[in-house]
Order: sequence, then C-alpha cells, then structure tokens
Amino acid sequence: MLSDGYYSAAYPLHEGHWKAGSAENPRKVLFDHWANWKNSLKFQPVDYVRLYFGEKIALYFAWLGFYTTMLVPATVVGLAVFIYGLAIMTTNIASKELCDDHNNFTMCPLCDARCPYWKLSDACSHAKASRIFDNGATVFFAIFMSLWGTLFLEFWKRKEATIQYKWDMTTFVQEEEPPRPEYLSKLENWQTMKVDPVTGIKEPHLPFWRRRFPIFLTSYSIMLFLAAVAVTAVIGVIAYRVSMLAALQLLPKQVTSNSSVVTTTAGLIYENASLVTTVTAALINLAIIIVLNLVYGYLAFWLTDWECLRTQSEYDSSITIKLFALQFVNYFCSIFYIAFFKGQFVGRPGKYRTIFGGRQEECEAGGCLIELCIQLAIIMVGKQLIQNNFIEIVVPKLLNLIKRKLSKETREQKLAKTPWEKDYLLAPAESMSLFYEYLEMALQFGFLTIFCAAFPLAPLFALINNIVEIRVDASKFTTHLRRPLAEKTANIGIWYSVLYGISRIAIISNAFIIALTSEFIPRLVYTARYSEDGTLKGYVNFTMASFNTSDFAEIDKPKDTHLGVVEVCRYKDFRDSYSPDPDLAYRRSIIFWHILAARLAFVVVFENVVVVLTSLMSWLIPDVPTVLKEQIHREAYITNEIVLKTELKRAHGEEISSVDLSSHGGDDDDNRYSPHHSDDVAIIQRHTKRKNPEPRTYV
Amino acid sequence: MLSDGYYSAAYPLHEGHWKAGSAENPRKVLFDHWANWKNSLKFQPVDYVRLYFGEKIALYFAWLGFYTTMLVPATVVGLAVFIYGLAIMTTNIASKELCDDHNNFTMCPLCDARCPYWKLSDACSHAKASRIFDNGATVFFAIFMSLWGTLFLEFWKRKEATIQYKWDMTTFVQEEEPPRPEYLSKLENWQTMKVDPVTGIKEPHLPFWRRRFPIFLTSYSIMLFLAAVAVTAVIGVIAYRVSMLAALQLLPKQVTSNSSVVTTTAGLIYENASLVTTVTAALINLAIIIVLNLVYGYLAFWLTDWECLRTQSEYDSSITIKLFALQFVNYFCSIFYIAFFKGQFVGRPGKYRTIFGGRQEECEAGGCLIELCIQLAIIMVGKQLIQNNFIEIVVPKLLNLIKRKLSKETREQKLAKTPWEKDYLLAPAESMSLFYEYLEMALQFGFLTIFCAAFPLAPLFALINNIVEIRVDASKFTTHLRRPLAEKTANIGIWYSVLYGISRIAIISNAFIIALTSEFIPRLVYTARYSEDGTLKGYVNFTMASFNTSDFAEIDKPKDTHLGVVEVCRYKDFRDSYSPDPDLAYRRSIIFWHILAARLAFVVVFENVVVVLTSLMSWLIPDVPTVLKEQIHREAYITNEIVLKTELKRAHGEEISSVDLSSHGGDDDDNRYSPHHSDDVAIIQRHTKRKNPEPRTYV
Repeated sequence: MLSDGYYSAAYPLHEGHWKAGSAENPRKVLFDHWANWKNSLKFQPVDYVRLYFGEKIALYFAWLGFYTTMLVPATVVGLAVFIYGLAIMTTNIASKELCDDHNNFTMCPLCDARCPYWKLSDACSHAKASRIFDNGATVFFAIFMSLWGTLFLEFWKRKEATIQYKWDMTTFVQEEEPPRPEYLSKLENWQTMKVDPVTGIKEPHLPFWRRRFPIFLTSYSIMLFLAAVAVTAVIGVIAYRVSMLAALQLLPKQVTSNSSVVTTTAGLIYENASLVTTVTAALINLAIIIVLNLVYGYLAFWLTDWECLRTQSEYDSSITIKLFALQFVNYFCSIFYIAFFKGQFVGRPGKYRTIFGGRQEECEAGGCLIELCIQLAIIMVGKQLIQNNFIEIVVPKLLNLIKRKLSKETREQKLAKTPWEKDYLLAPAESMSLFYEYLEMALQFGFLTIFCAAFPLAPLFALINNIVEIRVDASKFTTHLRRPLAEKTANIGIWYSVLYGISRIAIISNAFIIALTSEFIPRLVYTARYSEDGTLKGYVNFTMASFNTSDFAEIDKPKDTHLGVVEVCRYKDFRDSYSPDPDLAYRRSIIFWHILAARLAFVVVFENVVVVLTSLMSWLIPDVPTVLKEQIHREAYITNEIVLKTELKRAHGEEISSVDLSSHGGDDDDNRYSPHHSDDVAIIQRHTKRKNPEPRTYV
Repeated sequence: MLSDGYYSAAYPLHEGHWKAGSAENPRKVLFDHWANWKNSLKFQPVDYVRLYFGEKIALYFAWLGFYTTMLVPATVVGLAVFIYGLAIMTTNIASKELCDDHNNFTMCPLCDARCPYWKLSDACSHAKASRIFDNGATVFFAIFMSLWGTLFLEFWKRKEATIQYKWDMTTFVQEEEPPRPEYLSKLENWQTMKVDPVTGIKEPHLPFWRRRFPIFLTSYSIMLFLAAVAVTAVIGVIAYRVSMLAALQLLPKQVTSNSSVVTTTAGLIYENASLVTTVTAALINLAIIIVLNLVYGYLAFWLTDWECLRTQSEYDSSITIKLFALQFVNYFCSIFYIAFFKGQFVGRPGKYRTIFGGRQEECEAGGCLIELCIQLAIIMVGKQLIQNNFIEIVVPKLLNLIKRKLSKETREQKLAKTPWEKDYLLAPAESMSLFYEYLEMALQFGFLTIFCAAFPLAPLFALINNIVEIRVDASKFTTHLRRPLAEKTANIGIWYSVLYGISRIAIISNAFIIALTSEFIPRLVYTARYSEDGTLKGYVNFTMASFNTSDFAEIDKPKDTHLGVVEVCRYKDFRDSYSPDPDLAYRRSIIFWHILAARLAFVVVFENVVVVLTSLMSWLIPDVPTVLKEQIHREAYITNEIVLKTELKRAHGEEISSVDLSSHGGDDDDNRYSPHHSDDVAIIQRHTKRKNPEPRTYV
C-alpha cells in the first residue's frame, strides 16, 4: 500500500520529545546519557539502547564502542612509533649523507631532454621526512597491528557471546524468511510456481540456469566494468601527476632578487614540486572517489533490485558484496598503485620503459613510502572529514533547518501536533542506514590494517573519528530519524567475515610494503654485508648506480646545462656501471639480486611468522569466556535437575507446585552475569526486566 | 572397585557369537556384512555400526570410510604424475647430458684426501631416477593435493552434518562432565576444596599458580626433552650415513676379471654406495622410530596420569597433544632434515664447512629429492606394514592362539560357558583404542600432504592400507575386543583441528620442497633466461661451478689419481670460478642470487595463491548441504506451527488431542533424509528405529 501511494509512511512512534519530557521518558534518557556530547569518553548504555531500538541497532553500537576501545592501544603504539621516527629523522646517518652538499651526487635528469641534471641534496627534506615512516619501528608496528587485528576479532567473539547471553540471544536462530514484497509484486504474473520446501506455500520461482544465472552474470559484468572505471580514474590521476611534474620542472628557477609574490610562490612550488603534485593529485583522487561512490551507490541498488532476489537477507548480502567491493576498489586502488607498482618498472637512463609515449613515474630519492603516507593520510582523513562529518552532521542539520523554515509554523501549531505528525517531519529510518555505518567502519579498518606499515598515525585518526562517530550516530538515531523497526540479530553477520578477510589481506600487504616499498631491507643488507664498519655510512652511494652521459641518445640529452659538463650521472638502482661490452653495461648487478632475494625472504618469513602467531592466538583464546560458559552449563544443569525432579514427582503421582519450578529459577535470572559488565548499565537504573519488548503502536 | 581388585573386569556383553547365531543376531550381521574381507570394496553400514557400538565408534568408521573414498581421486592423479615422470625419465635432455660420457665432467672428490676425483656420468642412474619425481608435474600435484586436502575437510564437514542429522545429534551438547574417579581417589585427602560452579558439589581443587602451573611446566619440559631425544636419534643416523658413505668409498674398486661372489657384491655395493646408505639409514631410522614410539606411549600416559587432570575430556586432550606432538616429531624429523637442510650449507671445495670435524652430507648429482622420496617410502610404507598390519593383525591372532592353548579346554566346556565368560577371554576395549586409530590416520594424512611434492605414490599406499585397515579394525571390534561402552559424540573433535593444521603445514612445506629441494626453479630460470635455444641443452654445465685443484690444501688433495692429473674439477653450486683476487674467487655468482630470488618468489606466489584458492573454496562450499538445511528449517517451522496451533486451541479452551500433535509428526521422522544416503544402509534392513540404545546388562 505504501508503494501504491495509499499511505505516505508507516513507522513506529518515538516516545515523546528528546528535549522535553520527564526524566522517565526513555528517549530523553537516551539523549541525555548516550547521544549527548558530554558522554563522549564514557562507555555506552547499550542495554538501554537495545530496549529502545532493538538488538540490531544496539549490537552495532556495542561493536562500534568495542572497536573504539580497542583502538586506544593501537593509537598509543602508533604514536610511539611516530615519535621514534621523528627522533631519528635528523640524527640518521643516511639522511645526513643525503643532505650533505659535499657528497655532491649529480643525478640523471627526471625527464627526457627538457629536464636538467640535479643535485641529490635538493631532495634532502623529502628524504628526511620519509625516514619518519621508514625505519625499523615500522616493521614492529606492522607485526603489532597484525596481532592487534586478530586480538580485536577474537575478543569481539567473546564480547559478542557475552552480549548474546545478556540479551537472551544465545540460541536465537533466524526463522524462515518470507519472500520480499517487492519480489512477489514484481513476479505477480509469473508462470513458473514452486512450493517452498520449508513452509509448503506456493510462490513464483526463477529457474536457476535459465534466469538466475544470466542475471547473475550480467550483474557481475557490470560490476567489473564499474571497477574498471575506478581503475581508469586512478590512471587518469597518474597522467595528471606525470604531466604536472613535467610542467613544474619547466618553470624558470628564479631565486633572484625579484621577490614579487607571484615568483616567490612559483619558486616555492618549484622547490616542492613533488610535494605539491602528490598533494593535489591525492585531493583530485579523493574528489573522484567521493563522486564515484555516490554513483556506485545508486547503481548497486539499481542492480540489486533488478536481480530480483527472494528474501531480504539475500538482498542484503548481495548489496553488501557489491557496495563493499566497489568502494574497496575505489578507495584502495590508487593506494595500491603507489605502494606496489609506482617506480618498480621504470627502466634505466638511456633505456626508459615508456608507457603512452612518456616515461613512467619514479619514486623520489627518499622512497615511495612517504608518498604512500601522504596519499593515505589525505584519502583517509579527507574521507572521514567530508563523508562522515560533513555529510552526517552538517547536511541533516541544514535539511532540518530548511524543512522548518519552509513549514512556517507558529509555536502553537507545533505544540498542538500529534506525536505521529511530529515524527513525520523526521527523516525516514531506512533499513540500509546501519549497513552504511558498518561499511564505513570496515573501510576504516582496512586503512588501519592494510597499510599500517606506511602510516602509524592511522589509529589515532580513526580513534578521533570514532569517538565523534558514536555520538553523531547516536543523536542521529534519537533525534533526526523516525524510530526504526526493532529487529533481532545475534551477531554482526557478514561483517565479521569482511573484517577477517581484511585482516588477512593486511598481513600480505604489510609484508610487501616493508619488503618492496620501504628501504628497510636494502639498509639491512648493506649494514650486514657491504658496510665497512657495520653502520649506514656510505649507504647513499651504495644505492646509486652510475651512468655515462655519453650513452644518452642525442635527442634525450638535457638541454639545460647549469651544472656544467656532466660526465657521469647517478640514478637510484642497483646496476653495474659502464662497460665497453654493450651486453654487460648497466646490467642488474649482483647486489640487485642479493637484495631481491633478501626482500623475498623477508616476505616469506614475515608472512609465515605472523600467520603462525595469529593462528596460535585465535586457537588459544576461547571464543566464549570461561565464566560465561560455566554459567550456561549451570543453567542447563539446573533445567535438567528441575525436569528430573518434576518427572520423578509425576511418576510418584504428586502434584507439581509452582514453587518447585521456581526454587532454582532465581539463578536463571539474566542479571546474574551482569555484575561483570555493570559499567555498561550502571548509569541508568533499569526500569523493567522485560525480555521481549512490549508490542508497540504503529501509525 | 575395579582398581581395588574386588572385580576383575566390567563390560557390556556382546550379542551372541559372531560365527554362530541366527541371521537376526546383530553381531553376526555386522561380521558378515561389515568386518568380512569380501566387503572390502563396499561402503560400510555405519548406521548399523552405530546401533551396535554407539555414535563414537561409528563416527570413526564413517570418517575413515569417507577419507578412504576421497583417497581414490588423489591416487589416480598421483599415479598419472608418476607415469608421466617415468615417461620423461629417459627422454629428458638434462638426464641425457648427465649420462653422456663425452661430456666428461670431472667432479671434485666427495671427501677430503681419501676420496678420488670422479666422473659425473657415474651418477647417471641416480639422476635419471630422480627425474621421475622432480619435474613440472610435481608442482601441479602439490597444488592439487593442497586443494584436495581442503576439499576433503570441507566435504567432511558436510558429511558430518548429514550424519549428525541422521543420528539425531544436531543439537547434542556434551553435558557437564563429572571429575574422573582417578582424580578424586588421588586427591582423597586433599585440603583445598572448591564448589564446582556448575553442579554446586564440593570437590578437591588444585590451585592454578601454586600447583597446576608447575606441573604443566615440568610436564612440557619433559616433552621437550623427549622431542630432543628424537632429534638426537636423527643426528645419529646422519652420522651413520656420513661414515658409511666414507667407508664404502674406501672399498677397492674391483671391476676386474676376479669375479668371485664377494667382490661382485662389494662392487655392486660400491656402485650403488649412496643407494645402499640411503636405504639402510632409512631402515635404521624406522627401527628407532618404532622403538621410541613405544617408549613415548608409556611416558605420555605416565605424565598425563601424573598431571592429575579433573575431567576425562581434559585428560584425553592432554594425551592427544602429547602423543601427537611426540610421534609427529619422531616420524617427520628425519624427513624434514633431508627435505630442507641436507646439503644446503656444505660450503665449497677448499673451504668446506665442517661439523664434528667432518664434512657435511651432500646431495647427489640428481638432487636431494630422490633421497627424500626413498626415506618417505620406507618410513611410510614400513610403518604401515609393521605397525598397522603386523601389530594389529598378527599379534592379536597370536595372543588369542596362545590364550586358547593355555586354557586347554574341551569343546564341551567351551560351549557350556556363559556369554560373560566367553567375552572375558577377549581383550578389553580400552577407551584409548579409538584414539590410536585416529592418530595413525592423522600421521598418514601428514605423510600424504606434507611431502606430496616428493612422493606422488603416497596416496596409493595410503589407499591400499586403509582398505585393509577398515576391515582389520572392524573385525577387531566385532571379534577380538569385548564390547565397548557406547559413547555419544557429535564430531571427530580435536582431530579436525589436527587435520586442518596438517593441511596448512603442507602448503608451506610443499612450497619449500619445490623451491629449495627440487631443481624445478633452476631449470625454469635456465630455460627462461640463460639457455640459448630455450631448451635444457647445456643445463648440466650451467649447474656446475669449477674449482682449480691447485687451491686445495695439501692435506686435502686426493691421494687416488686414477683419472690422471686433474687441473679443474667441477662441483654442484652456482659460484664464480677461479680469480687471482682471493676476495673474488669462488664467490657466489650472480646466477646464484638470481636463482635464489626466483626460488623465494616461487614460495611467495605458491603460498599466497594456494591459500587464496583454499580460503575461497572453504568459503564457497557451505558447511551444511542445502537440502539438509531446508529439512532442518522445515522441522523448526512445523514445530512452531504445532506450538502455535496448540496454544491457540488452549486459548480457546479446547481439548488438545494427540492427533493434532502427530498430524505433522510424520515429517519429523529421521528417515526422511535417508533416501539420499540409503547406500549406507541398503544392505541391512533396519530392525528398529530406536534413537537411544536400550540399557544393557553389566557384569
């Protein structure tokens, strides 16, 4: 009837207003003790949320609260790693050598013909900054975060078991779902009918091979195409970065007396060309990501509607997989490119590998890790600022304001309204809104774990965001949305698998970031085998191959010769130097293969050690706390005892009094476990101990 | 009372004799249709086994049968790989080159001073044989077996769910266990008492930190010591192998006219020195393993008794972990040594790494893989022949024979005996006997999967063994043992985790065997990069480094000079050749590092691909078959309907007739699912449909 327009909305009513209303009004209590900003650093009253909003929403908040709490240790360790990085940034020998003008490495030009030779010490600040994130502590942090991820998931299982017990959901099983009304109405005139094996009711049926399979195939082909669009966008941004860098190189270098604002700015931009490019490119990326996400959202729903799925849970799973996959590709594609592909297949001076007629992007002298870090920071923090805060806080407020202005009601009219009229003004509570909250958090968990080796501050930003997020979501549910239908659920469902999958990807990803993107392994190999005194002295020289400029093709030779005649220029690679035999000149050197072997050995060791550690941890930590298990056993035991006693009495022909049944019943109370978790509920006195919420009135 | 000697035994009775007895006697039916050899190639009547022996034993046989069935595809693929190996053995270019006398590689001596130079073509047969197991098909087989292992475990979950449903165990939960009588009697006079949180009964309690922890620590220290003993034994065998090889090298090489039997034998031994050593060493290993296992068995039980564990399941878990860990180390230690360590750290001519004053073992010219294969074959097949067949078949028969001889009864006396007197003559059915069967199978699964890259025939031997094993075990339970107490269990418990763990170890192990032990990667690198025409032509030369004999220390120089003056000898390694600069001479060459990088890259790719594939498979295959899930839902739905209907009638004050309750009851019958699995039960008509075995009489 809703879709046919007979009614304009149907929703359960809120209980009174969140500002007015007596202290007994649960909505006001929730607003004061939960949604209010002053509770930001307190635990949430999830038991009370459950009574008002139902298990599904309360479980989300319980999970979010637990996740936020678990972020605290990660933040502390991340900050410590960051401070360690800051401390060694300037004292480090390799950075010192790089910044030392006396070393005087003349580098090969960054582009063909137009770019000049340049001095390595120009890249000094960049190299110094990259040392903050590229040091031994990062390896420790990557291992720590892998273990943290596993601990988080394991402890969540325990927490979930505890919550299930408290909410009497331990044996809850989703009953057989009816087909969605949309499904039935769409297939109203369908010919093929089939008896549902569970309920025995006839309903329309789409045959698998003739209908389901082609639909499935088409739908996922479109998905692949959409993912390809995201990849194309990333390639576009790469093209922007390459051309931008080339254009900036062409700016005249004016460090002269003419100090007008324009030239100073130009000079600044020139000096920080790579930084400017990286940052602007990341911002463009972010903008594209957000636009694409909006498009993807509509398309994913449209596709899933078209798929014509039978039950709501099938529909939810399908939309979850689609949206998560698309958003994951969208957010992580550019980051994966920088982490693993950028600058890995560049070639060498005189023989660059070209793509679309241009040279490929290279990493700066300090390594790609700092760029990865900037990209991550901008996308993660930008996403949180724009999507989570702007869209979730400012937009609803503005909408509400506009609505109120438009309605032009007097105060009297407002007060005279019935509760359903008041609630009608609020935004509708869609069943998918919780889905978006989970999606956001799963992506955040991805940023946090998959690239933790590059960005130890990620947990800090996530923590700040989540503390805000909890209260934003809470006030959204209490004040901005109509009261949602209470739904039961015993666990966070498919999201647990998603998080588990992310934590596994993170292990592989971190192994490769440390091995391939960071300079941890070359430094290790140098100090262990090639260094004369076991320090990093001479390391910068070690990482640079030399190139005879006479080997440049005539058209590629730099036109700008402000550094005079250069006979040998250096470039960052492990290659042999000039040799008269063209087969032997500039071949990958023995050091290259040695370091490659060391990198791969590191991947093997890291992956296996971390996998063994995490498996051991999840094996050793029981999924249900011992106290809780004993409690459940105790209840089963008592139930058994009562049954036995009653049967015995019945066998003796005695009357069964209700006293017998309740003699043990006191132990069965669901309050018995709560002393261990009273912090959640302590701030609110429990009014009733009802296990099933009373039936509510619907409009 | 048993332990105090008042009774000598307590056991349930068998139903009649397995030979005599009417066709209705379940023991005879089981003997005829299950334990008898003629059923070897048929499926087992596990439902019937369950009725006679209880769920625990029947589940073991169901699992064993399922495992044996799953071995068939593995055997077929393994045989195909073996035949492929046989086919390419002689046609292969590398083997041809190695066997060609014209190539005439003079090899460096195998031991210092006493050993002579030798011709590579002497190792021809060895190299040929190793090609059977060392080729591209092995890589395919390793991937196949990893997937097979996952499929096996996934399909077992489905099978288990089906069995659980059929046996009405879907919701079976182990009730609270009472403390073991041995625990209570041992702590009879114990002071610290504690109330059990579940039953509320007082019982003696060992405090964790003051008692449990020290006991635990001591116990596992002894375990570590025992494992070290096994490792020592392996080192001992290595010492034997080294000295044996050296001794055989000293035998005079007499291929002359003097053809007495002794010298011919000596000649044969000399020619096959390495084969003789490998085989005898493996046999010694096997003997040590079997002796150690006996000792370990006693020690593990003694230790676990001493640990004073409260419940039977704690006791079982503890003994499982102990025995499995010890036997695993014991069986696999020598194999792991050959697979991953032998010949990897030898050094080079003129600068061998010594250990205990002698040179380390080297791998033959054909690679270590063939030795690994021989070791595996002897230990696996030998173990199965000796332990499984000899100990399980011959020993009980002999014991029974001796018992019968000793009792010297007339036929009349025998017939006049009561059933409990007859059963008393049988061996007692210990609760651990099933444990040993599982242990045996878990180790076999280990041999099968962990080293499948080296021995594709393993599934074949396992299959043959298991076909015999099922009937041996069946006849053991029906004829040689007293009837065991029927126990309920819903799954194979900790063994599932053990098998899962083994299948994970197998992925890592196979990756390393292919990468490090086999010559797959060097061959690949050679054809891809160093070969002139893309074939293996010149490969043998490629793998041999040269050594200037003038660089031998004077005492190490070979005394035997039957090959004349040798200036340059070859050895299997990737090193640079002689150089005047001592720093540069015989350094690991660029090819070495290149191949090492390729090997490690292979490990990374193999591991990740296989892990992703197996995870995907276990994610896609539902744990419970769809038909079964619908069935369970249907039952829940009907139960719900009945409850609703009854409540409705009650609310209307109507009388509840039993007809209402049973109207849907017919669907609930546990036979409804069986049409899909009738093969198990078809050969025996089901007598009763009792769900709980009737109470039995105890002596």
